[in-house]
Amino acid sequence: MSWEENVRKVIPYTPGEQPKIKNIIKLNTNENPYPPAPAVEEALRNMDADAFRKYPDPGCSRLVNAIADFYKVDKDNVFVGVGSDDVLSMAFLTFFNSNKPVLFPDITYSFYDVWAQLYRIPYEQIPLKSDFTIEPSDYFRENGGIVIANPNAPTGVELSLSAIEEIVKRNPDVVVIVDEAYVDFGGESALPLIDKYDNLLVVQTFSKSRSMAGMRIGYAFGSKKLIGYLSDAKFSFNSYTMNMPSLELGALAIEDRDYFEKTRSMIIKTRERTKEELSKLGFVFADSKTNFIFAMHPDRPGKELFEYLRQHDIIVRRFDLPRISEYLRISIGTDEEMDTLISVLKEII
Amino acid sequence: MSWEENVRKVIPYTPGEQPKIKNIIKLNTNENPYPPAPAVEEALRNMDADAFRKYPDPGCSRLVNAIADFYKVDKDNVFVGVGSDDVLSMAFLTFFNSNKPVLFPDITYSFYDVWAQLYRIPYEQIPLKSDFTIEPSDYFRENGGIVIANPNAPTGVELSLSAIEEIVKRNPDVVVIVDEAYVDFGGESALPLIDKYDNLLVVQTFSKSRSMAGMRIGYAFGSKKLIGYLSDAKFSFNSYTMNMPSLELGALAIEDRDYFEKTRSMIIKTRERTKEELSKLGFVFADSKTNFIFAMHPDRPGKELFEYLRQHDIIVRRFDLPRISEYLRISIGTDEEMDTLISVLKEII
Repeated sequence: MSWEENVRKVIPYTPGEQPKIKNIIKLNTNENPYPPAPAVEEALRNMDADAFRKYPDPGCSRLVNAIADFYKVDKDNVFVGVGSDDVLSMAFLTFFNSNKPVLFPDITYSFYDVWAQLYRIPYEQIPLKSDFTIEPSDYFRENGGIVIANPNAPTGVELSLSAIEEIVKRNPDVVVIVDEAYVDFGGESALPLIDKYDNLLVVQTFSKSRSMAGMRIGYAFGSKKLIGYLSDAKFSFNSYTMNMPSLELGALAIEDRDYFEKTRSMIIKTRERTKEELSKLGFVFADSKTNFIFAMHPDRPGKELFEYLRQHDIIVRRFDLPRISEYLRISIGTDEEMDTLISVLKEII
Repeated sequence: MSWEENVRKVIPYTPGEQPKIKNIIKLNTNENPYPPAPAVEEALRNMDADAFRKYPDPGCSRLVNAIADFYKVDKDNVFVGVGSDDVLSMAFLTFFNSNKPVLFPDITYSFYDVWAQLYRIPYEQIPLKSDFTIEPSDYFRENGGIVIANPNAPTGVELSLSAIEEIVKRNPDVVVIVDEAYVDFGGESALPLIDKYDNLLVVQTFSKSRSMAGMRIGYAFGSKKLIGYLSDAKFSFNSYTMNMPSLELGALAIEDRDYFEKTRSMIIKTRERTKEELSKLGFVFADSKTNFIFAMHPDRPGKELFEYLRQHDIIVRRFDLPRISEYLRISIGTDEEMDTLISVLKEII
């Protein structure tokens, strides 16, 4: 026998390409085209590097308090982590210890099945309807937990808050995770439900609407009891997951509400304009409430469009998976970037 | 039934206190008394906050390459994470999937049993000898993995490289983790053994000798095969664990070899001087090869000494655990801080 027999072998998630070429239009990882709030840049200039010799605050109180203030919740309802991936991964580990399958859609964020496999959690992928919407009643049955990305990725489609509430209400015996990575671009958050349902975890991130993917900051809301269990697991994994710059710069970013409102409005406006242009070109897509559009063209294979754009220095994301291989997931960049995208697409169509 | 039945319930690790009071002499978490390398401060001033809107490099190549260059190993032998706790936790999850117990000393870093409990890994704690040394032959038996902190914490005691090699050689069927958080203060690293034994993982950190606890950077060396498995698990947990400042500032810190050599020599010198002073006061301690001294006084209870120091604004660490409750773990600060410590101790003894 060999040590390799006891290795937890997994097929890891493949993140979107991070090309090192300059002057490329990068519309493949749903990053924000605008910089973080101005206070972030300023704080970097004044940050005390000497402080780095000490451990950061394990309770992350500076950041937790800023989030609690912004969302008008108690700090005991807030959990923070190294991006929403860290938060979600911890939540899978903490809450999904049943022998019954955890349920999530067949087309959704492709990390869910990776985490389930990593932690040996049984799971079942429930097919979305042909229009990429979720049928809530599919989730009214025995299970070990539920995960809904809302709005969903990579489809961009939203499930109504009443449908989310119905799913949470019908499943009091399991934890329901609502992954709201994209909610700030037009979705309705399930946050108001946390007071009513102690089994609901709402997860959000700084990577999209807060323009800070590079800083790795995610957070979650839930009942005090739920957050307590999650914190215990986190403190059993790593006491100090958030470094000093994340805690300080994250807090400053969230404190600037005006900048947040301004930039997310700009992205929503650009998205709506891009939808119109794509429609004119004959593209088909669901009504995205996110900072991306998941589109296909009835006359052109997805692979061909993807490669044509790549040749013209535009990167979008394409998933070579059943049901969605003809689609392109196009992140919303600046108006200029989207104009270039549209004019390149015009050439080929 | 309730959702709480499926919760992974754990007793989390309690990190050392991070007091918010100023002017305290903080000798409780083995932090470095000197600031990070000067290039770190300079890089903060010039860092581009706009870049934060994008995801960091998931391969962490800037940091991995800097570590590989410093230690003269291939980049495929290097793994990086959010502090050595993240690296160690991932290693437990990845490598310890046997039904046989993982072995580690009864007195050692108190996170090992926390991780074992978190991941439901069977484990057995092997008593150290009365002088706090490890008996290598205790580890020559069937097991599911081995973890040795070397030098050990909180004792500061080193196990010889030949003894480490014997343990690794006798256990080809399991992964042996050598946790070298403190090795730069006088220990001998097992790094040269990774070419000879593909089941050896050597873990180090930026939190002690690199003065960057606040940045959360840990790393590990191992065979290409071992590092590959660890990376797959990491990419199944979170693609982007290291944020942009960690990658950039960590690389800069490791590139300044002169500063590293200078500051670690200063700490070693201060430690040796502190040992002499503590001896004169009648303290008893093993020969520490770390940036702390684990000491007890035959005539004074550990609790009394701890509280007396606390009243005089000096915080050290005390573990209320069997066999070591009379001991204080005293981190090595600046010469001035240690002078104050000694003079306060003189008052009580």
